[in-house]
Amino acid sequence: MSHPPPSRDRMLEAAIRLLRTSGLSGAGINEIVRESGAPKGSVYHHFPDGKTQIAAEALALYASRVLSFLDTALAAGRTPTAKVRSLFAAMARRVESTAFAQSCAIGTVTLDLEPDMELLRGVLVSSLAEWQALVASHFDLGDARRTRSFAGLLLTAIEGAYIRCRAERSAAPFVEAGKWLTELVADGDSRRSPRRLSA
Amino acid sequence: MSHPPPSRDRMLEAAIRLLRTSGLSGAGINEIVRESGAPKGSVYHHFPDGKTQIAAEALALYASRVLSFLDTALAAGRTPTAKVRSLFAAMARRVESTAFAQSCAIGTVTLDLEPDMELLRGVLVSSLAEWQALVASHFDLGDARRTRSFAGLLLTAIEGAYIRCRAERSAAPFVEAGKWLTELVADGDSRRSPRRLSA
Repeated sequence: MSHPPPSRDRMLEAAIRLLRTSGLSGAGINEIVRESGAPKGSVYHHFPDGKTQIAAEALALYASRVLSFLDTALAAGRTPTAKVRSLFAAMARRVESTAFAQSCAIGTVTLDLEPDMELLRGVLVSSLAEWQALVASHFDLGDARRTRSFAGLLLTAIEGAYIRCRAERSAAPFVEAGKWLTELVADGDSRRSPRRLSA
Repeated sequence: MSHPPPSRDRMLEAAIRLLRTSGLSGAGINEIVRESGAPKGSVYHHFPDGKTQIAAEALALYASRVLSFLDTALAAGRTPTAKVRSLFAAMARRVESTAFAQSCAIGTVTLDLEPDMELLRGVLVSSLAEWQALVASHFDLGDARRTRSFAGLLLTAIEGAYIRCRAERSAAPFVEAGKWLTELVADGDSRRSPRRLSA
């Protein structure tokens, strides 16, 4: 016998969907209750601190999933350019799969951080830092600082492409960013090429 | 004798500030009235269609100002790399000047587009298209399609860097993006270098 997920889980999943759609403004208690189908009375039982607590837990759960997503997409490429191409192709499929209605919850919440939610900034900053470290671990551009900076650029491009994709209802900005950013690491491919190894 | 700006102008300026801060969710009629100091009774006199009309006019006015801003920043550089550097240095100063509290209104509204505001999407799309054409007009990367694509990448980087700058309360993501993206057009500089001209 399968059981439906407990209401706490359903509320977190609903919060993630709502945050990815329109940030904090769309993820109020009422919207989360409606979207999750969980009984309203259980909200403060599961989340005594209310909206801030749900948002913080939803963002942390979302960030850990994105970490896996990024890791899988990058691991699918063997060379630096193949990794960049794989990452942006995966992002293009990802935004398309939501019909351009959802993007990165860290991005939506950052542009929508209500003054009384300021403590969520810690989750935003640590999520971005974890993603940047993970992305950097897939590249070696000669020195650690440059590699970390390149990982930061990839995150910048992802957050920005999401905006253009949603406005234009097209995955093209991800494809475009992927093509350009491979050019920045093309010499990393040749460094590992047979020609170089046999030199 | 100087007169205070008419309330219509003050409402539009207030709407732009609020949209740049947190998108549509923060730019309700009440917030615009409070922020502008304009009499509430005058809102529907000046904007018979209410919030949608104010938002549409504010976004169009904002977009035309950004067009000038981009044009000035790009014109300050003579070579392709100088143009990219100048653009991202100007963006870094711009986000710093708002203490990381405001970003691009097109970005905030895109991630916050309420279903009943769908008609604003036209303003978002046309603003991005105008900016892309303006940015492209400052570069010549050999063929028009590639030049236009590079302009798109610059807009992607600007929108994404804004998110990271606001989350991290730092202008570093703009500086970082500027450094990397100059590498993509470095050969455009040498094409115009004295060495090449004397060849």
